[in-house]
Amino acid sequence: VAERGGWDGPLVGMVGAGQLARMTCQAAPSLGIRFRVLAADLTESAAQICGDTQVGDYREPAHLLAFAAGCDAVTFDHEHVPAAGLRALEEAGVAVRPGSAALRFTQDKLAMRHRMQELGVPCPRFAPVADLADVTGFSVRSGWPVVLKAVSGGYDGKGVWVCRTPEQAAEVLGYGIALLAEEHVAFTAELAALVARSPYGQGVAYPVVQTVQREGICREVLAPAPGLPADLAEDAQALALRIAAELGVIGLLAVELFLAGGRLLVNELAMRPHNSGHWTIEGARTSQFEQHLRAVLDMPFGSPELTAPQVVMVNLLGGDDGDLYERLHHVLAADPSIRVHLYGKRAKPGRKIGHVTALGADLADLRDRALAAASYLRWGTTQEASVPGPPLINRSPAPQEVA
Amino acid sequence: VAERGGWDGPLVGMVGAGQLARMTCQAAPSLGIRFRVLAADLTESAAQICGDTQVGDYREPAHLLAFAAGCDAVTFDHEHVPAAGLRALEEAGVAVRPGSAALRFTQDKLAMRHRMQELGVPCPRFAPVADLADVTGFSVRSGWPVVLKAVSGGYDGKGVWVCRTPEQAAEVLGYGIALLAEEHVAFTAELAALVARSPYGQGVAYPVVQTVQREGICREVLAPAPGLPADLAEDAQALALRIAAELGVIGLLAVELFLAGGRLLVNELAMRPHNSGHWTIEGARTSQFEQHLRAVLDMPFGSPELTAPQVVMVNLLGGDDGDLYERLHHVLAADPSIRVHLYGKRAKPGRKIGHVTALGADLADLRDRALAAASYLRWGTTQEASVPGPPLINRSPAPQEVA
Repeated sequence: VAERGGWDGPLVGMVGAGQLARMTCQAAPSLGIRFRVLAADLTESAAQICGDTQVGDYREPAHLLAFAAGCDAVTFDHEHVPAAGLRALEEAGVAVRPGSAALRFTQDKLAMRHRMQELGVPCPRFAPVADLADVTGFSVRSGWPVVLKAVSGGYDGKGVWVCRTPEQAAEVLGYGIALLAEEHVAFTAELAALVARSPYGQGVAYPVVQTVQREGICREVLAPAPGLPADLAEDAQALALRIAAELGVIGLLAVELFLAGGRLLVNELAMRPHNSGHWTIEGARTSQFEQHLRAVLDMPFGSPELTAPQVVMVNLLGGDDGDLYERLHHVLAADPSIRVHLYGKRAKPGRKIGHVTALGADLADLRDRALAAASYLRWGTTQEASVPGPPLINRSPAPQEVA
Repeated sequence: VAERGGWDGPLVGMVGAGQLARMTCQAAPSLGIRFRVLAADLTESAAQICGDTQVGDYREPAHLLAFAAGCDAVTFDHEHVPAAGLRALEEAGVAVRPGSAALRFTQDKLAMRHRMQELGVPCPRFAPVADLADVTGFSVRSGWPVVLKAVSGGYDGKGVWVCRTPEQAAEVLGYGIALLAEEHVAFTAELAALVARSPYGQGVAYPVVQTVQREGICREVLAPAPGLPADLAEDAQALALRIAAELGVIGLLAVELFLAGGRLLVNELAMRPHNSGHWTIEGARTSQFEQHLRAVLDMPFGSPELTAPQVVMVNLLGGDDGDLYERLHHVLAADPSIRVHLYGKRAKPGRKIGHVTALGADLADLRDRALAAASYLRWGTTQEASVPGPPLINRSPAPQEVA
């Protein structure tokens, strides 16, 4: 650890050094917060820029304890730290935020579903499944397709399989991992409600957004969710704040929701800065990254107010091996108002390597611009700007769920 | 230098590790730009956060050359690098931005005044002075007070003396440094025009701001300058762009101006991110820090557009030795929309240790809130919120210059 001088602000350690840690690292200095990351190696996204990177293995309690020394709070850019490590930190008196009791519900999807059920939170139908008989039994109530999910370890569509036939389910069962089955929800739209909660119990809710996924990966986030009735938006915010309080979350909680048949169903939970909140860097008065830091340090929250009537974020996925830097010049020249965020990652096909944000009043124009920029960076063409728009949200007259 | 992986973006080295380098460091990762600082020691503001800090002496050409190895461009957070070091870099083929030929005019105020005169740029009357006879001779034309300025090395009001009598001038002459005399301009307002220029020759101009100084230190920046007639604002932007082009500036150029008798007079030049542009972090679509990085890398410029009708930035000066962190909690609780930027510096009285920004539509409200926040952080009270407002800008019917 380097010798430090100046004003010694509080020190937050983030386990993991991906893009979430990178963007949190960019936010921390403004409030005088010192920031440390635990990286697997120095090439990781946040390790490239952080002035206080420690290299270690998040699966090793001893590495976590060494990392936490001197930290006023320890938090996470992923949910993969094993329970033993979290317990070791808590037993050593480290302020682990969120704590292991809350994080458990992001690590064990079956425990999460049971807890949501106990709380009376609307969710898709689900059941643990061990073999094909369990899946076919479940399908009697839910119909096909059946969604199989890894109980732990999934992310970005990995660990989620939409099975249209018993044969497909049998293949997934053959992977030999713990699974749960969920009904396949024919949704009107996917939404995300992002909230933060502090140890003091203060809560704050961002405007509810619509997310647009393709091939299991979030491609676009529209903030606020266009056409979402105000009462449903408020319901989603209230639901997320309630879940945060009931689970004792400290920090951010992203609640991914299905809007189906005019009802909200909880899909997934994440307790960290979330892809559905990247738009807040420029689009909200306080970014999700600063908000998470405020939360884990028990500082008062910043305003989640929008800075523009409409904000569109588009993820940048790795494409071919073209020269990203040259493409960046073209994109910045073509659209001086587009905001680009690169994560310092090599462009493997389909990998999230950055995002772009457009802010203004005209949703169609913002989508065109953000999709064009992301597409050009990916492929050297603007082809993706012509994809069809996301489904419009309207209160459906009748449930549209699985037949 | 740490081993690096991921996408190897361009590398910018900034000589100096104060708050300007700190805020540039926060901006760099978004465009995938790698960022290195040359610090005197690891306690400096930017050295605390930068993942690639080198410790060295900017007065030593050998240190500069070692620092520049691998950099795609080298730039500066202050104007104190000696000419010999700049020449050494340029002779070694380093992209020094701005170059020594331009930087000279920020290091030698007499050379700057002569160059402005050659260009026909309106300036206060000036003359080099070596002794009291020179000063009294100058005062025959300019009247008293006479402003004496150090030809080099001044900043933040240091190196500037307003002399009301020959006795005061004699005292300053006794310091034994090279001086120039300038007329004391009875200005209506002080303005700043911030522009950027790229090697390609592209230019961009931010909205012109009003700056409010007290005791020689910039205390408030009002963006855009309230009440400034549009033609004068355009004149100021055009003047700054013309100076940037004529001097061959690469990067940002801040032109500090007096508005006096309805005319614009150039006061000072700075070729780096500038205190009068800190409001752009939240208040402009592209911050001055990102714009400077784009300029020195010859990337297309980002939009300088305002993100709110009015933006107020107030500098935070060191006050008493109260607990800044506790005060920060109170300020954030009192005003969830205020934006705070701390520089990681110990609070020596009068030292700039941060700034706060308020954005909205009502100038008086924004000033109240920003002054209250800065005052509370400094003193633990909001006393400074009741200071009188800055003078209103109106096209004066007649010159108000020195009697």
